[in-house]
Parts: sequence; structure tokens; C-alpha cells
Amino acid sequence: MAATSSYPLKDELDIVIPTIRNLDFLEMWRPFFQPYHLIIVQDGDPSKTIKVPDGFDYELYNRNDINKILGPKASCISFKDSACRCFGYMVSKKKYIFTIDDDCFVAKDPTGKDIDALQQHINNLLHPSTPYFFNTLYDPFTEGADFVRGYPFSLREGVPTAVSHGLWLNIPDYDAPTQLVKPRERNTRYVDAVMTIPKGILFPMCGMNLAFDRTVIGPAMYFGLMGDGQPIGRYDDMWAGWCVKVICDHLGLGIKTGLPYIWHSKASNPFVNLKKEYKGIFWQEEIIPFFQDATLPKDCTTVQACYRELSKQVKDKLGKIDPYFAKLADAMVTWIDAWDELNPPPKAANGK
Amino acid sequence: MAATSSYPLKDELDIVIPTIRNLDFLEMWRPFFQPYHLIIVQDGDPSKTIKVPDGFDYELYNRNDINKILGPKASCISFKDSACRCFGYMVSKKKYIFTIDDDCFVAKDPTGKDIDALQQHINNLLHPSTPYFFNTLYDPFTEGADFVRGYPFSLREGVPTAVSHGLWLNIPDYDAPTQLVKPRERNTRYVDAVMTIPKGILFPMCGMNLAFDRTVIGPAMYFGLMGDGQPIGRYDDMWAGWCVKVICDHLGLGIKTGLPYIWHSKASNPFVNLKKEYKGIFWQEEIIPFFQDATLPKDCTTVQACYRELSKQVKDKLGKIDPYFAKLADAMVTWIDAWDELNPPPKAANGK
Repeated sequence: MAATSSYPLKDELDIVIPTIRNLDFLEMWRPFFQPYHLIIVQDGDPSKTIKVPDGFDYELYNRNDINKILGPKASCISFKDSACRCFGYMVSKKKYIFTIDDDCFVAKDPTGKDIDALQQHINNLLHPSTPYFFNTLYDPFTEGADFVRGYPFSLREGVPTAVSHGLWLNIPDYDAPTQLVKPRERNTRYVDAVMTIPKGILFPMCGMNLAFDRTVIGPAMYFGLMGDGQPIGRYDDMWAGWCVKVICDHLGLGIKTGLPYIWHSKASNPFVNLKKEYKGIFWQEEIIPFFQDATLPKDCTTVQACYRELSKQVKDKLGKIDPYFAKLADAMVTWIDAWDELNPPPKAANGK
Repeated sequence: MAATSSYPLKDELDIVIPTIRNLDFLEMWRPFFQPYHLIIVQDGDPSKTIKVPDGFDYELYNRNDINKILGPKASCISFKDSACRCFGYMVSKKKYIFTIDDDCFVAKDPTGKDIDALQQHINNLLHPSTPYFFNTLYDPFTEGADFVRGYPFSLREGVPTAVSHGLWLNIPDYDAPTQLVKPRERNTRYVDAVMTIPKGILFPMCGMNLAFDRTVIGPAMYFGLMGDGQPIGRYDDMWAGWCVKVICDHLGLGIKTGLPYIWHSKASNPFVNLKKEYKGIFWQEEIIPFFQDATLPKDCTTVQACYRELSKQVKDKLGKIDPYFAKLADAMVTWIDAWDELNPPPKAANGK
């Protein structure tokens, strides 16, 4: 029992890691991750063997496994892109997911202490969010903080937190143009805050250091079609973030951003990134207004229903930009079908 | 010229201080404030003499002065409440205002260095705000930060910043119930961030440590009717904040919150505060939805026009709560009339 209490939600959380290489980065995370179950999604060549350090409890899926499990529906899972990680969300049987990239290491707080990112995410997820009114002292559920004068009392109960979005010290998550313009910029600013992204406002959700309640928002955490055979890359987490935010706003769920930090070690190649991103860079100028204006009908009361409705709107309104969006809209439906197949609703209430 | 460059906007900014006591607190601010002009608004007994430390350049207004300058319109300026500070905004001839309470001292940053709050406010005001999309690395105009991947390029120019809302270390700005419940809570968390309050979201604006561009938003910075003869107190800055936020959202202006911190030395009496606040505590449950839903017609293109329109909506929709709101709505009109009288629009364009 002592051990359990120092590893909260040990049996209710999976750590999902997309990778193409040996997972040596786990050595540094051992004190924090070892008691948790890992779901490793191997991208690229399935004949390659991924080494996992001893002592970790894990299941590993390569492309052959994904094809076997999903059959024709495997088409919705990206290949040669870290977007494949969302397959791990689908096969998990746990309530919570933490996903992290394999070039992310343990960061230190300003006192020099190692940051237990997972614990902070869990803390974020287990406390309410406050999307309807801004609290100037940030997260009112943090120790030493509260709601300030003028914060309506009726809103202090908050709403359930669906997503905890963590940040990165060292290499910031910049797009290719910014990487090219500021090759030496490093994030050294430790901002000691967690906050709720207010209702009605979109944010750029990065998949590098992210946790969520999959029973609450999992079906919307689809990372889209990226990589091999697709016209764009590096928009997988952004796509998921836009969809998730619209659905959370509709269903009265909260999204937090801020702490915890991880140490992001390696800047990706800006030239390669530009090639992946350039269509996204102009497409997003139309996609974001689409999501800003998107409304869901009142009878969409489950994430699945919201997501199916959103897929229709994507096809109708973004299909004009490029045929890619019709394909993506279809993949969204395939994803939800696959999700429901692997996660059948409990007898009583049917999610659809 | 060297001196000027280390005191930015020296001739374009007034520091407004409401007070009932000698201004000894200025001694600590001397290195930062001395070159700036002060507008002191003396509250309470006008026969009392307020001592100002030597070497400061100031003008001082007591109640007799206010009555003399505004005549019957002086009724819109609160008495025996720090809400009277807004008279200082009206008589200023400068572009920028910084207002601070006389129980606020110089705070230290985590390295132990004195924080020049005024410089940070000026920095906030001189850089754009980004109210339409959330940037996860906070203020993209801070050194070492930028817009992150997925932030639409078309929104990176930002909008003009109208307001900079600073925070407080030590005594947090809590309402009476929270003060009563947590008498020993102190804010020790230095959050190294500035951020834009997103569009469509209200926040509790505290008047303790606040700067704004009065040419851009001044006419909306009315602190309402509080104190002597009024049924509530401690909602002066809140009222201004709600009005200002709705108008900034309508006009495409930005409001930032976060840095700089000041050191707030003295907790006010929670029992006295409860007496002042208790009506506000339940009224705000109706006032806030009113402001959340408030929309202004497109032809309201000046702050004055917006404010007059808002005063009508206040009378119509909040008048039902209590006759106080009809009186407040009238005072809002009186305020704008007085503002326009003291600040006649330049020949060409008439603000109305």
C-alpha cells in the first residue's frame, strides 16, 4: 500500500510511447515510470527490434500488429509519423493516458530537483478546471493559491479536467519557419503555473508531453492522417487539439496547460519539418477559423457523437481546401468505429 | 537623453495614487518613480494634509478640488472609497496611466532583485496582445519566447495592448469569505509570465497594480459608485474590469495579466470587507452573466460610444436586481460626459 500511494493511479494509467528506436531514454525516467504499464507503438519497419530497458512492464505494437488488430480499419492509423501513437490510446484499457516522446528527458525545477512530470499531470487531471472565468492567480487548486476577489462563487466548483498539456524546457516546440529564423533559441523560462484554457479559445496542443482521461475524452484524441502517403506532417497533435478543445467546450470539460515541464533534447531538422509543414501552414489559416466557429448540436452528448458530427463538418467545410480533408473526415469515422469496436460501451448506456 | 532612456515614457505617463494617509510608501519606490509625474487623489476629509516625500513631482486633488472641477458631475466620483482614483485618470493629460495602492511596496524577483513594476507594465503596454488564440509559451513577445508550432501566422501581429494587470506577492487579493477561511495564506509563488486574457473571457481586474493606455481605453476605466452612501464597496475595480474587457473585445484591443508583481503589505479587515462585499457577492452572480452575454453594436466604434451603450444595457438589464444599478448607469453617463468635457476630442474626429 505504501508503494501504491507514492505511485498514484498506478493501475489506472498507461504510458504511451511512439518510437522507431531503442528506448534508452526510459533509464532516466525509471524512478518515475517503472511501476506503470507502457504501451509502445513501434513506427516504421516492423521487422526491426526495439529494445526496452529491463524491468519495465510493457506491450509493444508494430505495424503488423496494428494491421492484425484493426484489419481494414488500420487505414486510420498513420505510418512513418508519430501520429501512430493514438493506436496506443485505443488499445489501452485504463482510465488515464500519459504520452511522451522518446527524446524527452527529466527536467529540473529551479531548485535543481528532478521534476516528476507524471505526478504533476495526475495532479492536474484529478483537480477541476475553470474554463468560464479567468483566475489571475492561475490554478486555484494549487497549494497556496485560490480564487481571487471577484471570482463568481457559483463557478468555483469547476468542471472535470479532461486533458493536461505539459511544456518543454530547452528545445521549444516551434514550427519550421521559427526554427529557421531562431536556430539557437532555447526555452529556459520555468513558469511555475498551471492554468485552464478558457472556453471558446483554441490552443496549439503538442503531443510530446500530454496526459488525458481516456474514458472522458479518449475517442476524440485521434491524431489524424500524417506521414507516409499524406500531404502533411507535424499537424497530428494540432488536429487532435482542435477537435478535443471544441468537444470539451461543448461537453463542459476542462483542458489545462503549463506544468509539468520535460527536457526536450533534440531539435528536429527544420528543412525536413518545412517540407512536412508547408501545406499545413496555409491550410491552418482556414482550419482554425473553421474550428473557432464550429458548434455541435445539443443532442451530441457523448464524445463519439460529437466526433462523428465534427467529421461531417470537416468533410463539408474543409473538403473544399483539398481532397485530403475528405479522406481525413472518413478516417475520423473509421477511427471512431475502431474505437467503439475495441472499447465496447458497458451494457446499459450506449455511447452513440 | 541618457536619463530619459532609462525612464521610458517619462513624459507620457502619470502615476495615480488614491490615499488617505501620508505617502511614505513612495520612499521605497523613489528609484523607479521619482522622474514621473504623480496624480494623488486624496480621499476622505479634505482638511487633512497629506505629506508627500520631498523630490516628487505631483498634483494633489481632495474632495473640494473634485467638486470644484466637476461641479454637479462630481457625483460620479466615489467618496470614502479608493474608487475615487478614477478622477485621476480623467484629469491626466498623458497617454499612459499607472495606478498603485499606498500599501504596495517593491517586490523582489526570485534572484533577490528589486522589481521595477513600472518598467514591466510599460513593456507590456508597448508590445501587442494576442487575444484570439492561446500561446502555450505565454507572451510571445518576451525575450526567449515566441509563438509555438500551430499558432496561425495571420494572428501573430497581435492587437494593441490597452491594459496591463499586475499581480501581488505576499497578501493575495482575496474576497472576505476567502480571507476569513484562509487568514494566513500568503502568495509566495512567483510566476514568471505575462499573458493575454483571451477574447470573450472575463477576469477579476484588481486596481492595486494596474497600467493602461488612457488614450485607447481611458473613458471605460470608471470605477463606479462605491463607499459613502452606496450599498457596496470593493467592486470598483471589478466593475471597471468587466466593462473594459467587453469593450476591448469589441474594439479589438488586448489586456495582459501576470508580471509585474508588487509586494502587498497589509491585509484589509475581513469583517469590514464582508460588510462592503456581501451584496456584491450575490449580485455578481447576475452581473457576470450579463457582461458575458453583452454585445455592442457595430456602429459603436469609440470607447465613449461603447460605454454609453453599455450604460443603457446596465440600466435595462441590471436595474431589476436593485435600484442601485439604475443609479450606477446614470453615473456611467455622467462620467463619460465629464470625461469628454475635460478631454475634448481633437478638432477633426469627434469621439461620439
